[in-house]
Amino acid sequence: MEKSDISKFFNPKSIAIIGASSKDGKVGNSVIKNVINSQYTGKVYPINPRDDEILGIKAYKNISDVPEEIDIAIFVIPSKFVVPVVEECGKKGVKGIIIITAGFKEIGGEGVEREDKIIQLAKQYNMRIVGPNCLGFICSSYNGSFAHATPKKGQIAMISQSGAMLTGMLDYSLGQSYGFSCNISLGNKADLGAVDFIEYLAEDDNTKVIICYLESINDGKRFLKVVPKAARRKPIIILKSGISEAGARAASSHTGSLTGSDTAYDLAFEKCGVIRANSIQDLFDFAEVFLYQPIPKKNSFAIITNAGGPGIVATDAFSNEGLILSEFSDHILHTLRNNLPAEAAIFNPVDIVGDAPPERYVFAIKTIFGINDDDSETLEKEEEITTHGALIILTPQAQTDPSRAAKFIQKTISKYLKDKTIVCSFIGDISIREGRQFLKNNQIPCYQFPDRAAHTLKTMIKRSYFVEQQSELPSNLKKYEGKTDRVKRIIKKVRNDKRTVLLSYETVKIFECYGIKAPKTKLARTPRQAMEIQPKIGNAVMKVVSPQIIHKTDVGGIALDISTPEEASKAYIQIVNNCKKYGPQNARIYGVEIQEMINYKEQEKVTELILGMSRDTQFGPIIMIGAGGIYANFLKDVSFALSYQFSEENAKKMLQKTKTYILLQGVRGEKPSDIKAVIDVLLKLSQLVNDFPEIVELDINPLLSFVKGYSAVDIKITISKKKIRPKTLI
Amino acid sequence: MEKSDISKFFNPKSIAIIGASSKDGKVGNSVIKNVINSQYTGKVYPINPRDDEILGIKAYKNISDVPEEIDIAIFVIPSKFVVPVVEECGKKGVKGIIIITAGFKEIGGEGVEREDKIIQLAKQYNMRIVGPNCLGFICSSYNGSFAHATPKKGQIAMISQSGAMLTGMLDYSLGQSYGFSCNISLGNKADLGAVDFIEYLAEDDNTKVIICYLESINDGKRFLKVVPKAARRKPIIILKSGISEAGARAASSHTGSLTGSDTAYDLAFEKCGVIRANSIQDLFDFAEVFLYQPIPKKNSFAIITNAGGPGIVATDAFSNEGLILSEFSDHILHTLRNNLPAEAAIFNPVDIVGDAPPERYVFAIKTIFGINDDDSETLEKEEEITTHGALIILTPQAQTDPSRAAKFIQKTISKYLKDKTIVCSFIGDISIREGRQFLKNNQIPCYQFPDRAAHTLKTMIKRSYFVEQQSELPSNLKKYEGKTDRVKRIIKKVRNDKRTVLLSYETVKIFECYGIKAPKTKLARTPRQAMEIQPKIGNAVMKVVSPQIIHKTDVGGIALDISTPEEASKAYIQIVNNCKKYGPQNARIYGVEIQEMINYKEQEKVTELILGMSRDTQFGPIIMIGAGGIYANFLKDVSFALSYQFSEENAKKMLQKTKTYILLQGVRGEKPSDIKAVIDVLLKLSQLVNDFPEIVELDINPLLSFVKGYSAVDIKITISKKKIRPKTLI
Repeated sequence: MEKSDISKFFNPKSIAIIGASSKDGKVGNSVIKNVINSQYTGKVYPINPRDDEILGIKAYKNISDVPEEIDIAIFVIPSKFVVPVVEECGKKGVKGIIIITAGFKEIGGEGVEREDKIIQLAKQYNMRIVGPNCLGFICSSYNGSFAHATPKKGQIAMISQSGAMLTGMLDYSLGQSYGFSCNISLGNKADLGAVDFIEYLAEDDNTKVIICYLESINDGKRFLKVVPKAARRKPIIILKSGISEAGARAASSHTGSLTGSDTAYDLAFEKCGVIRANSIQDLFDFAEVFLYQPIPKKNSFAIITNAGGPGIVATDAFSNEGLILSEFSDHILHTLRNNLPAEAAIFNPVDIVGDAPPERYVFAIKTIFGINDDDSETLEKEEEITTHGALIILTPQAQTDPSRAAKFIQKTISKYLKDKTIVCSFIGDISIREGRQFLKNNQIPCYQFPDRAAHTLKTMIKRSYFVEQQSELPSNLKKYEGKTDRVKRIIKKVRNDKRTVLLSYETVKIFECYGIKAPKTKLARTPRQAMEIQPKIGNAVMKVVSPQIIHKTDVGGIALDISTPEEASKAYIQIVNNCKKYGPQNARIYGVEIQEMINYKEQEKVTELILGMSRDTQFGPIIMIGAGGIYANFLKDVSFALSYQFSEENAKKMLQKTKTYILLQGVRGEKPSDIKAVIDVLLKLSQLVNDFPEIVELDINPLLSFVKGYSAVDIKITISKKKIRPKTLI
Repeated sequence: MEKSDISKFFNPKSIAIIGASSKDGKVGNSVIKNVINSQYTGKVYPINPRDDEILGIKAYKNISDVPEEIDIAIFVIPSKFVVPVVEECGKKGVKGIIIITAGFKEIGGEGVEREDKIIQLAKQYNMRIVGPNCLGFICSSYNGSFAHATPKKGQIAMISQSGAMLTGMLDYSLGQSYGFSCNISLGNKADLGAVDFIEYLAEDDNTKVIICYLESINDGKRFLKVVPKAARRKPIIILKSGISEAGARAASSHTGSLTGSDTAYDLAFEKCGVIRANSIQDLFDFAEVFLYQPIPKKNSFAIITNAGGPGIVATDAFSNEGLILSEFSDHILHTLRNNLPAEAAIFNPVDIVGDAPPERYVFAIKTIFGINDDDSETLEKEEEITTHGALIILTPQAQTDPSRAAKFIQKTISKYLKDKTIVCSFIGDISIREGRQFLKNNQIPCYQFPDRAAHTLKTMIKRSYFVEQQSELPSNLKKYEGKTDRVKRIIKKVRNDKRTVLLSYETVKIFECYGIKAPKTKLARTPRQAMEIQPKIGNAVMKVVSPQIIHKTDVGGIALDISTPEEASKAYIQIVNNCKKYGPQNARIYGVEIQEMINYKEQEKVTELILGMSRDTQFGPIIMIGAGGIYANFLKDVSFALSYQFSEENAKKMLQKTKTYILLQGVRGEKPSDIKAVIDVLLKLSQLVNDFPEIVELDINPLLSFVKGYSAVDIKITISKKKIRPKTLI
């Protein structure tokens, strides 16, 4: 289906309301009223079997009776009637249907069947669906919803998976000063979901900011592909709820248990440049500031206040959010000193003191940003202006006139400072309400308290980092060509064996196919084979291979320091005898593994790392790295990245996020570890798990990192029970 | 001075306003107007040399002219006139003075002198001072400030170090629904500070909650003594700002550099049961909820909502704050199932769905809390009611009547649920404003969004833990009797030597005085002494002792594995020669330390810990423990406690906060370490640093913890340059 199909929802030439009603209080009445009252300029066709006319508009018994073409049909009829009418719509050539009606997938049983049926019909007749089970669809050309208020028009696009949240947020917005280019209630997302609309709205000139309330994302792959492009065009802010419910991740591996239930969403949002809102308040505060204020060129702000206390509170909040206070040039400091009262604080935060009239705010703002009074030329050389944004604080003191101050501040900003990021905090309520509203109405965000201001400015800085990144795709994406055929054969053998956990020598073989170094490991099935293998391995540790024997040491299933073929043969016999004697009765013994012994002491420096992968249903493999060894789960010094488009840069960054990275670099005169080699393992690991979706979990713990090279000592690979059709994400 | 002195500020029989004025716009005019308009029932004496009468009240030229007694004098005259008038007040027998006038310590120079003078006069004449440089003093009997609005009366006591913050917060409160028992502007705190008022207000029946905005606490010791008692009586909420400025802590030790600039305040507040607000919003939200709602008996809450989305958002917020959703009994679940619509979600969070009339809210609330309709007896057996509080969410959907819902909810709560903690979140603005205000006016906090509700409920749970603690003072406070005379002698010697950093053998001696085990260490000053000492030590490491030689290895200043007297003598000569040859020219060599070599390998299990102390100006020694060794500063796995009233319980708790504690307990079949011994060291360390305030920093890194016992291998002690008069905090 084409993008143009979606555009029909925004600009329909005609709308049919199926179930339109003239009875007050009915949903079908609310919808047609909303369509009419929103000054829709196209044609409206009420469809109702009982009425000839609704609210003065000719009604039709059936959609097929309408003599002209219909672009969009809005459904407000009981769920049991929906399916046949959808088919009618299809035959009539309707382009898009908005199903407000509930009683589909969300109720289970027959509801699921109904939803499947309409999906199938929509495909058959090339229609797109919004809903079912939604509040409707509101855009600049019409209000096709049963919301009992039409939002103000503006440049925020709002997408919500919950109708009630949309209602609440609309109501909230009516008390604020911003408006919407559209309000889309996704409902059950039978067809169109958030990604579809994000893709469309990224190109929509009426939309400057996109905000979403989502409870799930169905197609992670498409999200990862589409959203980054959209996020480069405009800010996308998402409140993703349901975090606390997502905890049911399988955790048979270290990586699985260390991966938070919400990690995948965090990683995906970060990768895509999505701004994550943690509350409804965030959603709106972020939307407002991105809508009205330019992104700061640098993390370098001024605070201007008419009182010391709030200045300190703001400074704390700035420090908390990682915002930096700019240092003023000597010239600016002199100008401030010479013109402000003696009690004023001229260093950032600037305290223009309690009796400050509006003019003093204007003076301070102009001075700090180097504005010349008469011709708006800068007083300063460009390079002396180190301030790229400001928080202007007002407390209503005895001599303060908040409303007049608001006007003066606004005028100064709109005249001189369109390219700087300016927000205000007027602290109080009764006295400053008018001033605050004036600022908000004039595109200057104004918060009750300074910490909200710091919170939104920090988000702007984060976005500035994303926007600065040059290209959308990492340029250095290298595909590592593993010996996939050999890996396939190993996995097939494990499947035939009805196992999901690979044996040690199998994991080593797979790693060899991808060029990841692990201690040489071979399986001997007889004492004779053991004799033959040992010389190829050298000094070795021998371990019983049996899926049923987990604690090998306890049953005498391990022998250390085997250095001759004879010892190997003897150890084989001894191990098998021990296991038969002390192991579980049903233990199936495959043989004995002969593994190269890693001599730690030969190494100048050894750092234990953990590397691993767990798989997210939506966003695919999540790669992990961090402090390894037996304490890995306690240290929890790990970081994560999506394996989707995983670049060398990504690998470096994720490693740098761990404290272990400091140890790898070398502390107190230690030599640095072979970090390049570790990064190489991460990249190969990512390739492996992308090539083989049947690998559901993977742990390397420890991977020993040396001054030169490394060894993946202990590897655990778990595969899915059923075969998964290989599809690569990269 | 007595507490009763403070009470005069709250209940004066007479007030003189020094600098009262009849001119509008003058501060002296605002103050007298405020006093009169606040319906003060005592006598008012305006003092002004130029007027005979002010606002209809007879004025006096001087305070000495007033024929009757004066309890309180409020100063609004220029700063240069303040000192002589303070003396007049003293002679007149005034009990308390409120100095609004600025121009004292805050301007430096003569201001400091003026402030010192009034402090001295106040002492001389037994007067107490509020201010100078403040907004004034407001309490239920009068408004003695120049605030341009008188706050509502209520039960919140508000103390602010910043007049402007007080102004802003007063203004904010006027738009809200709560009032104040007093609003105190501390100004420069020349005499009375926050602790004085907290102590008084804890006993004040008009006050239910105390909130403070503070930038500093001057007398940490008194704070630690007074505030815990007050916090047991009523919630004390403090917004302490200036966090970002406090960073200038000396950091020559590990402990110093690991201790955050704000750690001491955090520890002190926690120890005292103070609720820390992180924003102005917190301050008010916390005050409101403590004022109106009972503390929940258990962390077990219900969420009732008329829409799924906000329920999920709330559940996330609860999970985020560590709040627990209660599990309903089968009977409750059945009752809900049988009476709510089929689409309703009956498990917690309970979704009573979008068309819910107010009656359905009432039904759900009553059912969950087991309320019988007719006689307010519970339907359930007490033990089946597992829910101790609730968040009730409303979104304004098509059929919702928010105002009516608010009334129904309020009525139900006030009738049946006075002992449960109930808060609401009405999401939106325009439609729900009236309902939200109604709830707030009726003592039910109602938030715009659910996350604020979760935030305040979490704070209530935290307070419930504090209130549950049985006694104010730890019962098991043991004082360890160190050999203080010996320690004094060592410190004296170091001082005489003009050093601040102790040499290794000195630290070991000090530790011996307090029964803390360190490797035996003795100083040899000649090769002969080395010979004599070695047999007493056993297998030893020898190190040059010279304050100037820091990197001992680099200059050949260390010899390992010395096991005979002869080797010791030889090593002595070799080391001294090496140091003379390769060390700095000015190096003063004290001799060579002979230290017992710790044989790690003999130990079954060794865990490296760091223990230390850094000293806070206000709150005294801060004890630290955590993961030690060369990576201590990178792992940053440490926790802190104030040494003030440091109990075994405190020591255990601080250790349990570190991840290292898990290692000490033994992981994967390891034996547990000797945790008792480690705790003993913490207690002794605390005693040592309390006995000797001249110890400014102390590090033990590592302290090796064994399965049995420990060894404090490397100790660093720094003492202050000047002698500090020993005063113990315990």
